[in-house]
Parts: sequence; C-alpha cells; structure tokens
Amino acid sequence: MIDIRNRISKVMRGSAASRILLINSGTNQDSNFLYMTGFTSGVFEGSALIIEKGYETLLTSKLEEGIALEQKPKHMDVIAVKSREEMRSRLSSLLKGKTVGINGNYLPYSTYISIKRIAKPRNIIDTSKSFNIARSVKEPYELQLMKKANHIIKKVLSEMPKFFKVGITEKQLAAHVEYLIREYNGDGSSFPPIVAFGKNAALPHHMPDGTKLTENSIVLLDCGAKFENYSSDVTRTYVFRPDKKSEKYKRIMEIYGIVENAQRIALDSIRSGVQGSVPHAKAEEYIDSAYDGRYEGKFIHSLGHPIGIDVHDVGTSLSINEERELKPGMVVSDEPGIYVRGFGGVRIEDDVIVTANEAKMM
Amino acid sequence: MIDIRNRISKVMRGSAASRILLINSGTNQDSNFLYMTGFTSGVFEGSALIIEKGYETLLTSKLEEGIALEQKPKHMDVIAVKSREEMRSRLSSLLKGKTVGINGNYLPYSTYISIKRIAKPRNIIDTSKSFNIARSVKEPYELQLMKKANHIIKKVLSEMPKFFKVGITEKQLAAHVEYLIREYNGDGSSFPPIVAFGKNAALPHHMPDGTKLTENSIVLLDCGAKFENYSSDVTRTYVFRPDKKSEKYKRIMEIYGIVENAQRIALDSIRSGVQGSVPHAKAEEYIDSAYDGRYEGKFIHSLGHPIGIDVHDVGTSLSINEERELKPGMVVSDEPGIYVRGFGGVRIEDDVIVTANEAKMM
Repeated sequence: MIDIRNRISKVMRGSAASRILLINSGTNQDSNFLYMTGFTSGVFEGSALIIEKGYETLLTSKLEEGIALEQKPKHMDVIAVKSREEMRSRLSSLLKGKTVGINGNYLPYSTYISIKRIAKPRNIIDTSKSFNIARSVKEPYELQLMKKANHIIKKVLSEMPKFFKVGITEKQLAAHVEYLIREYNGDGSSFPPIVAFGKNAALPHHMPDGTKLTENSIVLLDCGAKFENYSSDVTRTYVFRPDKKSEKYKRIMEIYGIVENAQRIALDSIRSGVQGSVPHAKAEEYIDSAYDGRYEGKFIHSLGHPIGIDVHDVGTSLSINEERELKPGMVVSDEPGIYVRGFGGVRIEDDVIVTANEAKMM
Repeated sequence: MIDIRNRISKVMRGSAASRILLINSGTNQDSNFLYMTGFTSGVFEGSALIIEKGYETLLTSKLEEGIALEQKPKHMDVIAVKSREEMRSRLSSLLKGKTVGINGNYLPYSTYISIKRIAKPRNIIDTSKSFNIARSVKEPYELQLMKKANHIIKKVLSEMPKFFKVGITEKQLAAHVEYLIREYNGDGSSFPPIVAFGKNAALPHHMPDGTKLTENSIVLLDCGAKFENYSSDVTRTYVFRPDKKSEKYKRIMEIYGIVENAQRIALDSIRSGVQGSVPHAKAEEYIDSAYDGRYEGKFIHSLGHPIGIDVHDVGTSLSINEERELKPGMVVSDEPGIYVRGFGGVRIEDDVIVTANEAKMM
C-alpha cells in the first residue's frame, strides 16, 4: 500500500526551507500530484493540492469531488470549490505570508505568476529537486506495480509476431499492441506505441503510419503499459519472414548482434554508486568500435532514462553527461540502438532495477 | 495544407512587443510546438523552436534530426545539437539582448529561470494569449482534420454495442475502443477512454476498471480519436439489455430525456457573438428546473470546452464564468450530464463548429 505520510516526510526533508507545498494540476497532470495522492482515477484539471504538517488539502471541483472522496488517503481533506473566486480566497487563506514549495519543473510560468499575485505567499521556492530525489528511488510497493507493468508489456510483445503478415500497416499493429495491453489488465499505453517497418526503424521516434509490412523486413516495436500510474518501456526488433541468404538480412543480424552485446555490456556496469554516464559510455564505445568502426556514430541517443510514474521519469539517466550516481531502487531503461538512415535500425530495450551489486532486468 | 508562415504572422500580430518567439518542448509536448511545426511524428523532448522574421530554427538532438528533416516546413532550419553546452550557446546567440515571447501557460517555471540565466534576453514576455487567440479559431484545414477525428470516433462508438455482454469489464471495453480507433486510421486516443458501468457513471471522470457489465445497466462511453494531431471528444450513454418495466430503467430514461433536451437547447444558443456562459446557463437552467427540480444541482460540470490539438484546447469555453464570445471557426463540446451518486449518470457529448448563425454538429 502507498504510505502517503512517508512520501510527505521524504519530500519535506529534502526542502527544509518550505513547510508547505503546493501542487497544481493542469491540463497535463503533474506526476507529483499522482505521487502525493495515489489517485488512479479522475482528471483533476485545475485542482490544487496543499500539503502542510502531514496533512493534505485538495481544492477541486464538484466534477471531481466524488472520485476524490472514493480514493482519498486518510489525511486528506477534499474541498469542492464552487467558483474561481472561492479558489482564489482559499488559496490565499492557506498560503498567505508563507514560504511555499512548488514543482518548478512542471508549474507553468503563468500559474506561478498568478499564485504570487492571488495568494501573496511570503516566498515561492522551487522544490522540484526534493520531489525528484524522493521519486527517483522506488519503494517496494512501486517496484511491484512496475514489475506488473513490465510483465504486461512483455506478454504483449511476445504475442505480437503472430499478427505479422504481408500488408498489415504499422497503425494496425499499434492497434493490436494497445488492445492487448488492456486485455492483459494494463491501464493503457504509457506512451503512444512506436511501430516501425523497414527503413522507418532508422528513426528512433517514428510514429506508426500506413506503411505496409513486406517480407524480409525489420519490425521495431517500442511500447509500454501503464499499471496503476506506473510505466514500463520495452523495445523488441524482429525480422518478418527473413530471407536468410539475403545481404539485407545478414546486415540486420550483424547490427542486431552488436546491439544485443551492447545491452549486456551496459547492464554489467549498472549498479549502485556508478555514475549514469558510465554505462552509456560502455555501450557507445562498444558500438563505435565493433566491426572496425562500421557503425561509429550510429548510436544516436542516450542509453537509458529513469522510469516510474512517467515513462521518462525523474532521477539519474544513463547518458553522456550524467554525473549523478545510480542508487539501489532506481529503475532505468537499458536501450542501445543502431540506426542507418535509408536502411533501418535495431533497438533492444529492457527496464532494469538497480541494486547494490548489479542491475536486474524487470 | 498547413501554412506555417500564416500561423507565424497570426501569432506575431497578437504580440507586437516580441519579435522573436521561443517554444520549448518538454516531457509533455507543448501543443504550440505542434501548431508551429505541423509535426505529426517524433517526440522532441528538450528541443527548442525559435521563430524570428518568418523563419523557424529548431534546436534538437541527433535522435530527432532525421524525423525533423522528413517533416520540416519550408522555412525551417534543423540543427542537431551535440551537447548541453552547445544548446546553451546557441540559445544565447539567438536570444541575447532580445525581447523573447514564450508560452507562459506551458513553460515550466524552472525552464523560464534557466532561459533567463543562460540566454540573457533583454526581456521575456508571456505571449500565451496570442497563441491561444490564433489557435482558438480553426483554419479550414484544421476543421478537415477535426471532422476526420470526429468521424473516426463516431464510427467506433456506433460499433461498441456489439461488444456489450454480461461479464465484460470496463477495461476490456476500453481495449475495443482503442483498437477500433486505430483500425479506422486514427492516431490513437485523444485521451484515455472513460468507460463507466452502472453507478460508476455517476463519476464523470471514472477510469475503466475491473467492473463487470450486468443486465439493465448504464454503459457510459466518453472517448476521442486523434487524427494528425487533432482531437475529437464524444460521449454516448446506453442501457445494456434494459428491463423496460423496471423502475431503474424508467429513471435512467427520464434522466436521458432531460440530458438530450438540454444538449439541444444549448446547441440552439451556440453561435458567433454569444458569450460562452450563455449556452451553459441555458442547459443548467433546463436541467435544474426539469421535473420540478428533481435533478437540481446534478449537472456538476461545465457544458463544454474548446477542442483542437488538445482535447481541452485553448479559447472560449462554455462555462458559468466565461465572458469571452464565441467566434466562427471555434470548435467546442456540447456535453450536458446528470449525475446521481450511488445510482449512475448520463452524459451526451458532441463536438460543434461555431458559425455566424448557428452551431453545427461535426
């Protein structure tokens, strides 16, 4: 179960200067709102969560009141605000003269300005770092949900090859991915699935379109499931009806082998205390030097990113400039790739949990 | 086709003070980034778009370079930035000493602070209003895409009843919705589908869970398709295998009749020059007074919101405090509902285009 009080004290410890936190939920929900409420249902656009002395006050609308009451943790008051004026006066009476911590990585500039004007706090400080540190190391309960999210997407991916056939489009395959995610009890996609056939796979973020599958062609599937707010993110690359004697197939397999090795080499270096830049460098060096540098410069993105509520979550990434260290309980993707424009690409991605001595695939 | 130059001049006209615009694309994409690029593929996390003198410069990463080059409009330079340092120095050389317009409704506070520090502009002004005004009135091309998005979701909804059966869960039905959206050539859901059975329908933003369908039960489906960046948002409420003699069914039908009338009454008042509060008030007055006030106070949300790239788009809404007027080319939802906690709810929603003399359902 989620222990909201524990989360509050974790975040508060990190930001000693502010004794009161404000989380605004806009059109796109601030993930910190989900983290600090545990809500898995509702939209809460325009709602505000105020946290003080271990208690939460949710200022929301009549529209969301019922769904908030159904889900609210013990130490939360839910107030259905009737008008913009009431919202303003409540914010003012809660925040006036105080030092208020906000999530500066999310809060839009214009909301910042209007809170300053409306609520007249003594001071507003950006406490995004405290949120990020708290969220970057996952609790055992969070790891359970993430394992579930991982399990769902892996089950989906393992079934995808049976849908491969000549003429199916990338969009149609994406439809099967999303259907199976929900069929296997996921709460939808954690991001729009990437489905790329043939040379489209050379573009790491290609969105599925009307491209039709042909024989001896790459099928790259990069997708994730949500499960109770938590994300997974896994990539598999296949060749549909390979012509094993063709030069094309041999080249794909050559690339596949390098990427597979790079993923394992990187994995071996992921553990607590290691800087995020290290596993990236290991993978990049390996790819750049394989086959006398035949694919040098073709690994065109970071090795990995933190995963949690957001598919690109907060915390230590596996990238060239990442100086922060990995800690036990962090979850990151390990996803090397090689991209050859005009030909295609291969990416293999798994989500891994950092422990003291190693990284474990989820 | 999209005329990006026309869009630039529309936005620039609205913000005479700034001659240069900066759109940062973060974890959640700023819709203005899509509006000003026309991109339908790629992620562009951490990219920056700078607009000056009718030209666009996209500072992005090697990861997104290929996909940007494939889609870029005529007057755009794409620069694949190699490091954080290069990003900083390029931003600085483009923005230093200038008055820079940003989208304050999106740009996170911490990004605002770091742009100020890194790029040393003369001044940063919030030009979100100019973007919002430009985007709120849809171009004919945008209306075409929105009609397509509407057509897809209506086709999906019309086929949903054939999946209704005893024991199917809300999540499973959501799976069918998303599958058909893509099957009918949509680019996925414009928001996670709301599927609510029975008393769950009393919560307007209920998320699909394991609830199983039973006979003589409400099925509320609120969902939307994306088509080339544009959204639709339509709600239908059904009764599965009604027991036409039951009190429950009669009550649902009574509520349904009121909501249906309210939607039409509101629609009749939607036209150019009318304040957004007017249609809302018409619907609310009708619902509150029907059957001698039996459902007074049970319409617990706004009548409608603007729709466009975002499903909750920018511009004039249909809500109690909306003083702005409707204009030809605006698109809004018309979605009254009645919610009885512990019993259920009915909502009917269509997207309508505002014209000089009337509103037309899409």
